[in-house]
Amino acid sequence: MELMDGKAIAKQLKEEIATEVAEMISNGHRPPHLAVILIGNNPASETYVNAKVKACKATGFESSLLQFPPEISQSTLLQTIDELNENEELDGFIIQLPLPKHIEEKIVIERVIPSKDVDGFHPINVGKMSLGLDSFISATPGGIVELLKRYKVETEGKHCVVLGRSNIVGAPMAMLMRRNTYPGNCTVTVAHSRTQNLKEICLQGDILIAAIGKPDFVTADMVKEGAVVVDVGINRVDDASRERGYRLTGDVDFNGVSPKCSFITPVPGGVGPMTIAYLLNNTMIAARKRM
Amino acid sequence: MELMDGKAIAKQLKEEIATEVAEMISNGHRPPHLAVILIGNNPASETYVNAKVKACKATGFESSLLQFPPEISQSTLLQTIDELNENEELDGFIIQLPLPKHIEEKIVIERVIPSKDVDGFHPINVGKMSLGLDSFISATPGGIVELLKRYKVETEGKHCVVLGRSNIVGAPMAMLMRRNTYPGNCTVTVAHSRTQNLKEICLQGDILIAAIGKPDFVTADMVKEGAVVVDVGINRVDDASRERGYRLTGDVDFNGVSPKCSFITPVPGGVGPMTIAYLLNNTMIAARKRM
Repeated sequence: MELMDGKAIAKQLKEEIATEVAEMISNGHRPPHLAVILIGNNPASETYVNAKVKACKATGFESSLLQFPPEISQSTLLQTIDELNENEELDGFIIQLPLPKHIEEKIVIERVIPSKDVDGFHPINVGKMSLGLDSFISATPGGIVELLKRYKVETEGKHCVVLGRSNIVGAPMAMLMRRNTYPGNCTVTVAHSRTQNLKEICLQGDILIAAIGKPDFVTADMVKEGAVVVDVGINRVDDASRERGYRLTGDVDFNGVSPKCSFITPVPGGVGPMTIAYLLNNTMIAARKRM
Repeated sequence: MELMDGKAIAKQLKEEIATEVAEMISNGHRPPHLAVILIGNNPASETYVNAKVKACKATGFESSLLQFPPEISQSTLLQTIDELNENEELDGFIIQLPLPKHIEEKIVIERVIPSKDVDGFHPINVGKMSLGLDSFISATPGGIVELLKRYKVETEGKHCVVLGRSNIVGAPMAMLMRRNTYPGNCTVTVAHSRTQNLKEICLQGDILIAAIGKPDFVTADMVKEGAVVVDVGINRVDDASRERGYRLTGDVDFNGVSPKCSFITPVPGGVGPMTIAYLLNNTMIAARKRM
């Protein structure tokens, strides 16, 4: 069993990006610039946003954090997006989800100009990815693909089972893994809450990607011997023994499953850091195009 | 075994559309209007286009056929598209594929205004479909879903195996069958040319959708007892006994497979007529929005 060390690979990716940033600056260009819109004070959102801003600083990116109270009106938010769309000093921006209930996510996401949509959430980026055209690939699936690539995981002709069909992980993962490229060319099965014979389906996975948000859901009896397991779950589980009162756990029962795997990602330190690194990667792509 | 009679269901769908058209006209509106751009003289393309124009006439749609020689320049084609985009008397239009080699398909498809893209090929329509948002669903997958619905085929929790990963059939079929709706909520597997254990995969299909363009590829030993089989293939096979020198055959060996099925589509008379009817359905949707 080999650990796919997302923390280490993310560090490597960020170092590569930092080198490119330094070159850009020494060639007289401004550094890439990412803006993050954060609404309200969801603790998980704040944690993610802080990690993104910190990663920007570590790689030499400029970053802007735009914080708004939870009662911000949709029209004010859309106006802010319009300003960011037009701001020539900005390469990309994201709106941290979830949004307050009075704001319609769909309208907000579609307002972002696709060339700055470094989260890859705009329908035109989703569509282009599906069609195999040049587009921003959203950060979590993009980070997973990068991780598989850096560990040279064989994918062609393998059966990839994706647990979960969410718009931000399951659905795009399925598209990416079946593409006619590397990583890709997998037979892909998407399983979800309505799947009947889930264990049987999971056992077919040469590559198993768990993205259902249920702590320790995937157990050893559901995993094929020698499988590659990618754990996308980041679940907070109450834990009185920890100072903060909880611990993070994935969708996979790591202790039980890992002995059967050829490769497996840990939680934390697997997909999470890759997601942030891939967001920087997307911002760098946007910056290159803008140059 | 029950035949899913695409010809009969398409007729029914077209009759429903014709009734609505008659109402529109009696309410003082113009009928829906579809334009078709045909370039060159590919015999298959001509056949399809003629069938589409004929279907328009039969349902009371206005139709326009814009024919161009194969040497038309890309810029002239794009200019024509711009005119159709702006034409207020037109609800939708399609460009019959394939295009001559000197014209880039991607550029042409992205030039069509999404609100008139009744083929559903524009990346923004593909993306919206993937995200479960309101969009044009392209005619072949849309027609198949309609056929399953009219035959009340159970889909929830079923395992749907899609053979083929093309942008116009396999990929969108996979998205539609896994959606959280009816028809949908299937566990979905996409298999293709790189799939290793194809027979084993196919045998899992409660619903098997064959879209690989290989005549009689799916044989009885690959099909689960009681499966629902949808044959998307339209292959021309040489046949000296026919006046025109060929016969049409699907991707499924109908004679061998059909006795094992609960439902199966024939070729011809299955998916083909549904595709045309669904194009009219999309044009009707566009016309309703424009009204």
